Amino acid sequence: MMNMKEQLQQDVNIIEDALGKYVPEKDNLQSSIYKAMRYSLLAGGKRLRPVLMIETGKMCGGEVGEILPFACAMEMIHTYSLIHDDLPAMDNDELRRGMPTNHIKFGEAEAILAGDALLNRAFEVVAQNPGKDPARTLKAISILAESSGTEGMIGGQVIDLESEGKRIDADVLKKLHSLKTGAIIRSSCVVGAVLSGAAEEEVRAADEFALNLGIAFQIQDDILDVTGDEASLGKPVGSDADNEKSTYVTLFGMKRAGELSREYTKKAISALEIFGDRAGFLKELTLSLLDRNS
Amino acid sequence: MMNMKEQLQQDVNIIEDALGKYVPEKDNLQSSIYKAMRYSLLAGGKRLRPVLMIETGKMCGGEVGEILPFACAMEMIHTYSLIHDDLPAMDNDELRRGMPTNHIKFGEAEAILAGDALLNRAFEVVAQNPGKDPARTLKAISILAESSGTEGMIGGQVIDLESEGKRIDADVLKKLHSLKTGAIIRSSCVVGAVLSGAAEEEVRAADEFALNLGIAFQIQDDILDVTGDEASLGKPVGSDADNEKSTYVTLFGMKRAGELSREYTKKAISALEIFGDRAGFLKELTLSLLDRNS
Repeated sequence: MMNMKEQLQQDVNIIEDALGKYVPEKDNLQSSIYKAMRYSLLAGGKRLRPVLMIETGKMCGGEVGEILPFACAMEMIHTYSLIHDDLPAMDNDELRRGMPTNHIKFGEAEAILAGDALLNRAFEVVAQNPGKDPARTLKAISILAESSGTEGMIGGQVIDLESEGKRIDADVLKKLHSLKTGAIIRSSCVVGAVLSGAAEEEVRAADEFALNLGIAFQIQDDILDVTGDEASLGKPVGSDADNEKSTYVTLFGMKRAGELSREYTKKAISALEIFGDRAGFLKELTLSLLDRNS
Repeated sequence: MMNMKEQLQQDVNIIEDALGKYVPEKDNLQSSIYKAMRYSLLAGGKRLRPVLMIETGKMCGGEVGEILPFACAMEMIHTYSLIHDDLPAMDNDELRRGMPTNHIKFGEAEAILAGDALLNRAFEVVAQNPGKDPARTLKAISILAESSGTEGMIGGQVIDLESEGKRIDADVLKKLHSLKTGAIIRSSCVVGAVLSGAAEEEVRAADEFALNLGIAFQIQDDILDVTGDEASLGKPVGSDADNEKSTYVTLFGMKRAGELSREYTKKAISALEIFGDRAGFLKELTLSLLDRNS
């Protein structure tokens, strides 16, 4: 049997292989858009969201093949949000994962369209793979879309935008993150469970797990922005402070932020209890995210 | 019985009422995004695509209630594409339908997010309304997404972008328009037919109708950019010439462009023959589009 790291690498390989097929190279008049989409989509990264979806699905008895289109759609949505977030009118970032951001490489107009195209392609891919139960597939599309929309990820980006240069309190910060990063981490796990025909109680447990994991993950991100090193992160350290962003570290201090990160990690792992032995991978993955350096 | 103009107005009223409900005002931390979305979505316009979808559906025996979510989704997709097209990095337009464009009104960052949010919301709305037959709904979502993606509308925008300042030939111009404006006009009619359970032959006829209507519509747009008046159009006349855009008028001359517009209109109407008397509305609408001044 594979250990967690080996299983994770196998999942990542399956996901990246599928991403490359869902967004292929093309030889037509609009070939440049495929290049721009692939540049960001295939630039590596942890693939955390699709891995969570696949492994939650497996834990609930689902088949990888049926979950894979949704897992890839989720990664496309995550990637489009990064491309648009990096634009000059937004965060104006020039580096991502150690590489020039999409608009630096392809120009601003192409980057806007590449983002649009990845979001659009996400829904094209899931609709083209109706699976065994079309009603269940529609429910999963609906959960996916809600989590990436104005009451989810985009809503969080809006709050982030409006908070720029302002002091925000812990409640607004929590709301911001629960939408901007939390919503699609939760829906990754919930969609994995729903597509696998999980019982209501299991879907709720998967959601509870992901909710707490998402918070722990964000706190760790804020900590790494202070303590991390540029080479591992692939982006400048201290950018939050430079941009006068409120973070868990600025609001609670480094020591308390570290404690909070461990508390939420513990809560996430507790939520997996009902899955018994089948939760081994996700428990180990959750612990490893606490120790990451990028 | 209502005449065409009365029926058209009734359709537009139903569509605009539903659009306002699908994208409501909200009183939360991200309320600004709903304002920005509604500003462009409820700014009027012909509502051509949702009207085509509803009326094609009715012609094929469908129910308006089942088609309406898709009709609104199509208008959201059309609207998001206009918001992003108007951005400084794209066409850099400051006026649309006589009003400041979205980024002039709300700023560039909010306009990018409002566009993203409308595209996302389109798929949220259709997935939340599975109708009587989920498999059919998924097929319709797939057609919708393909037509608005890189082998449809976005693909056309990419070709448009790359053609800027270049002389392009008639073949590239046709391809550009068949994707940028043609693809979602076609899918509007095809989705209307599919959702209504139309026979294969009827779906093909609806597609043939929309294909030719789309070309006639685009030629008329190019003609109006020369002969129209700013007050009716709600935007500056002569912008194509100013931007050195190739159009049907620059490539074929005004006289031949007028002939082509009438030829394609005729072809569109011929395609409706198999629907007999039920095609009355769409035939009249098609003729009226040839005579429009905006």
